[in-house]
Amino acid sequence: MSGRLGEFERIGRFLRPLADGTPGALGLGDDGAALDPPPGQRLVITTDAMVESVHYLPGERPDRLARKLLRVNLSDLAAMGARPWAYTLTTALNEGADEAWLAAFAEGLSDDQAAFEIALIGGDSVSTSGPVVLSVCAMGAVAPDRLLRRNGARPGDTIWVSGWLGDAALGLRLEKGEVAHPPQEATDHAYLCERFHLPSPRLALGAALGGLATAAMDVSDGLIGDLGHICRQSSVGAEIDLGAIPLSPAARTLIAGNPALQRIAWAGGDDYELLFTAAPEHAGRVAGAAGDAGVPATPIGRVTAGEGISAVGGSGEMQALAGWSHF
Amino acid sequence: MSGRLGEFERIGRFLRPLADGTPGALGLGDDGAALDPPPGQRLVITTDAMVESVHYLPGERPDRLARKLLRVNLSDLAAMGARPWAYTLTTALNEGADEAWLAAFAEGLSDDQAAFEIALIGGDSVSTSGPVVLSVCAMGAVAPDRLLRRNGARPGDTIWVSGWLGDAALGLRLEKGEVAHPPQEATDHAYLCERFHLPSPRLALGAALGGLATAAMDVSDGLIGDLGHICRQSSVGAEIDLGAIPLSPAARTLIAGNPALQRIAWAGGDDYELLFTAAPEHAGRVAGAAGDAGVPATPIGRVTAGEGISAVGGSGEMQALAGWSHF
Repeated sequence: MSGRLGEFERIGRFLRPLADGTPGALGLGDDGAALDPPPGQRLVITTDAMVESVHYLPGERPDRLARKLLRVNLSDLAAMGARPWAYTLTTALNEGADEAWLAAFAEGLSDDQAAFEIALIGGDSVSTSGPVVLSVCAMGAVAPDRLLRRNGARPGDTIWVSGWLGDAALGLRLEKGEVAHPPQEATDHAYLCERFHLPSPRLALGAALGGLATAAMDVSDGLIGDLGHICRQSSVGAEIDLGAIPLSPAARTLIAGNPALQRIAWAGGDDYELLFTAAPEHAGRVAGAAGDAGVPATPIGRVTAGEGISAVGGSGEMQALAGWSHF
Repeated sequence: MSGRLGEFERIGRFLRPLADGTPGALGLGDDGAALDPPPGQRLVITTDAMVESVHYLPGERPDRLARKLLRVNLSDLAAMGARPWAYTLTTALNEGADEAWLAAFAEGLSDDQAAFEIALIGGDSVSTSGPVVLSVCAMGAVAPDRLLRRNGARPGDTIWVSGWLGDAALGLRLEKGEVAHPPQEATDHAYLCERFHLPSPRLALGAALGGLATAAMDVSDGLIGDLGHICRQSSVGAEIDLGAIPLSPAARTLIAGNPALQRIAWAGGDDYELLFTAAPEHAGRVAGAAGDAGVPATPIGRVTAGEGISAVGGSGEMQALAGWSHF
């Protein structure tokens, strides 16, 4: 790697400062980190990887990329009700990642470490001749009785979703120039693209749903596919009201001008909203938790006995969607 | 990915069975794993990645590759005195990884999970158009007063190394056909190559050194470079006796026929032996710990005040080696 920093220089200059405030990271100078786990808490451990040209566009701003990488992992912690604790970072970088790229990447991590109170404790830095591969292993902590899982949905439960669906998938298509009639308002354009680039892990809401939601997960692959995971894990079915799916004002406007995009809002990925179920008598508590967390929560259907997802409202396009997979 | 299994099918068929015996893995069916940490223990967390054509040869047997991936991470746990607990696996695979490849890869993991008592608890599986990138985040547990670090070496301490150095670097060069006079004995050839492909994490020795060694790490990048890490972290120097560096009979024979390979035994990587320091009066206890662990430990020098690594014995080639870096 002529003309480039070696692994130790890269780590020392760009990554070690990210571990400075965490004694257990041992200054990234040992074979691993050594930390006392939060007492009385269960550890939640998740890992998500991102590949250049698969999960993000080539040339993506490294600071924003770093933040998204961290946030998609934080979203998994949120979906299990856990508070962020620590993470490791593995980067397989190619020649496109020069010092300026690394500095910006580290700055993005630093910003979101502060925003979400999570600490870098270790990692590995390797080279590849192919697309960049980035992965984070994030650890969180949760009281055992507040852990959220996918397998507790019961027939009759209300199905809820946080925030707004479809924004990110629409933003991605805007970035790729695939939308026939893009937004006339620059703020709508910017909002949708931002929702693709910088998801908001719903940590406060996830934590508040512990002991309240019967099942939860984050919507990373699209509502329909992800709801299917909850249904399979809980051995239940679901009926959703297509008309109730929450769309942002920017998404509504864009879809009005591009009706073919409607299904993207239901089946597109990268939303990182929370999808969860709760007993109907707890609707008030759910709304209160969402209010406290500063994010809307919208009831979009109910859990049914049996299996499969059916739809009411909307255009009947649901039959086509139900079989979708993002692969 | 036409004609190939989707992510969920891959996980379900090949990886979920690896998590079967671990309730906290939640059947790999949730957003993450949820485990109660071992009570009263400190967690040791490490991550190591391997890239096709960088860290292993293209076409490497997937079962052996899987085992090496796990073992290089286990070696980091060993170097900190920790007992294996759980790991996550992230794979960025290309079209070369078909079902047969995946089945063999999972079989290798399964074998070593059993051998080293560690459980798969989660991961991510993504696609890349470039070289395969594999990474493991391994977690171990250690009593706080038994944690091994790199920063406690004191002037006068004896420097020890487990096992034999240089075998792996010699094995790699044999595999690449770079040795002018390869071994005449097939068993020597097989032994050296095996040492490259399947390192032995010195977990029992690492655990036994807790409270006894003043500093420790694993030799992954070569003795000289890695000893430099201990020296820097401990603010000490080192003097090593080149003639004392333990070479296996196969390495001795090969070097005798290829004198240019001598320096590889001192500076080559991939050994995954333990390099550690201990007070000289504890030599007997170190020898006893090594005997109990079933691996030799050899004193190769002593820690000095000041900085830098000097050498006695050998050919004086040390001056050239001291400045080496593997990058």
